Amino acid sequence: MDQLASKTVLQPFENIEVIQEKSIQLSETLVTLAQGSGGAATHALIEGLFAHAFANSLLSKLDDAAVFPVDGARLAFTTDSYIVDPLFFNGGDIGDLAVNGTVNDLATSGAEPLYLTAGFIIEEGFPLTDLERIVQSMARAAAQAGVSIVTGDTRVVNKNRADKLFINTAGIGVIRRQVNLSAANAQPGDKVILSGPIGEHGVAIMAARGELDGNFKSDTAPLNGLIKSIFHVTTQVHCLKDPTRGGIATALNQIAKSSGVTITIQEDAILVSAETRRACALLGIDPLQAANEGKLIAIVPGEIADTVVAAMRQHPIGKNARVIGEISAESKDVVLLQTQTGGHRVIDMLTGDRLSRIC
Amino acid sequence: MDQLASKTVLQPFENIEVIQEKSIQLSETLVTLAQGSGGAATHALIEGLFAHAFANSLLSKLDDAAVFPVDGARLAFTTDSYIVDPLFFNGGDIGDLAVNGTVNDLATSGAEPLYLTAGFIIEEGFPLTDLERIVQSMARAAAQAGVSIVTGDTRVVNKNRADKLFINTAGIGVIRRQVNLSAANAQPGDKVILSGPIGEHGVAIMAARGELDGNFKSDTAPLNGLIKSIFHVTTQVHCLKDPTRGGIATALNQIAKSSGVTITIQEDAILVSAETRRACALLGIDPLQAANEGKLIAIVPGEIADTVVAAMRQHPIGKNARVIGEISAESKDVVLLQTQTGGHRVIDMLTGDRLSRIC
Repeated sequence: MDQLASKTVLQPFENIEVIQEKSIQLSETLVTLAQGSGGAATHALIEGLFAHAFANSLLSKLDDAAVFPVDGARLAFTTDSYIVDPLFFNGGDIGDLAVNGTVNDLATSGAEPLYLTAGFIIEEGFPLTDLERIVQSMARAAAQAGVSIVTGDTRVVNKNRADKLFINTAGIGVIRRQVNLSAANAQPGDKVILSGPIGEHGVAIMAARGELDGNFKSDTAPLNGLIKSIFHVTTQVHCLKDPTRGGIATALNQIAKSSGVTITIQEDAILVSAETRRACALLGIDPLQAANEGKLIAIVPGEIADTVVAAMRQHPIGKNARVIGEISAESKDVVLLQTQTGGHRVIDMLTGDRLSRIC
Repeated sequence: MDQLASKTVLQPFENIEVIQEKSIQLSETLVTLAQGSGGAATHALIEGLFAHAFANSLLSKLDDAAVFPVDGARLAFTTDSYIVDPLFFNGGDIGDLAVNGTVNDLATSGAEPLYLTAGFIIEEGFPLTDLERIVQSMARAAAQAGVSIVTGDTRVVNKNRADKLFINTAGIGVIRRQVNLSAANAQPGDKVILSGPIGEHGVAIMAARGELDGNFKSDTAPLNGLIKSIFHVTTQVHCLKDPTRGGIATALNQIAKSSGVTITIQEDAILVSAETRRACALLGIDPLQAANEGKLIAIVPGEIADTVVAAMRQHPIGKNARVIGEISAESKDVVLLQTQTGGHRVIDMLTGDRLSRIC
């Protein structure tokens, strides 16, 4: 832990100021599955180790994409690795997930996604026909989202030194509209809009693992078209977020924490299909913490919420959009669920490792 | 193989034209270690599968970085995954390798490296102190190269489902000089310049694996400073390349093939330390195929070769720069070594899997 405590000062670059993050002591000594879940333990690791060591003002925002200017162009830049198990599931595979995930991280920063990289880490002996199927799926997803995969990298590790296939994608987008989106921008009086029913990706993966019977289909989809529909009517949006690993509970907690606000959501406004609800009950998962791969949370000023909902409903993947809650400044950094019976309960980020390797 | 044979047409984007690559039939049915070696089998996989499926004019160039304009800025974009075994070795670790490798792929495209992403895939149970050490090493390497790590991603897989730690980095750079660099730009009459002695990284990894006794140190280093020294005296450079996996033999074969030329190199001009030469002999490796992580190949018009060599020698990591060969159009797509005894032999790309997981 000594190294973590020492200050690392990076050379400042362009408009990036160097941040002296306070080191957070990590309580574990070995990396745990929970630290890769996307939930509370992942955030503690990022804030305690990566944000501290790589200290700069872009990283410290902890948004899904970094946004910066280069020679007059306003760019967004993001990356994600995909380790989903199994590789193929109802509704998609690791390939379209890897494209859509990065497209969505760019789109929720307000950018038009342009170019992607693809890095493959493959276990020796992996069937080439499966690799071809996944690569074709990536090509179709890229075409659907209107992006090009322009460079890549291929590595192979010995048998049993990786689990079949891991894919990393990074992406560049350009922000051409006058938007300023961040998890830190939610304000009291804002409304929380959700694009449709939750938990579908998480449950589809569990079904593909054989932990459930039934016809569960992932919602994996590119969000840039839906987001364009919103910007067509307004650019006064405060925050866009795709609630993936850790579900809407984790995404909303990130926003509440970054913005220093309270988010109160209405249980009866949040759509969960009867099948997903039953599946989550069987699995002991809170649907609010179950993963999505094609849903959008939009935080917008209260007075334009209805306009945004109407615009979203014009798009096929936003037809079930609705206001699910609102922002206040009461007791900060907290997400509250107003239940159907009228009570309130605190909603936490995902904890534990129950939902690892979900994407 | 059926899927590979079908045509995938991507939506054209900005200045990217859609290329209908001819499908190359892959002769294997399972992915092999050789396909991740960076040598001949890797190139066959890239050309037969990825370049075909992701068909676009940027990818089909197969340079280490894609170069394109966005709103007036001329950008370079690249990615690499790092799976080096072991993680720590004399002279560096997976962390500085992951930063320097991506910095170098940007710099050899003529770009000033600006921003990096970092994606971590970690095996459950990996010691956090090792992760901290690697992350600090990345931070130091980023500071040395003048780049910022602005966004990242952390995944954890179950014990025995990954080998300790894999890192992906992607990078953005900006090309502000009037340069046009590509592996396809070598021309008859050009000279081949090499920045220093070869094979040091490959031998250092083998020593760290316990396959060698002796004090072998990796040459891992950022090349952007050295390349800036060249551009300070001329921008009339045709190609820059860092000969990493597969060594200078593989790098020069890529250039010969992309440019459709013959490259003839002089054995007695290529520096290999006596220790590296002995180590390669013991291991049965050709030093020309052994990996480097801080060396530069520059292909420049014959008339400016001496000027470029002189400029490189002003920089600490270029002080042993010299002309090692020249380009002709005799029998195309071939690399010839003129031996010290006056004979010629054909130099091939690395084949086989002897040197997998070297970076």
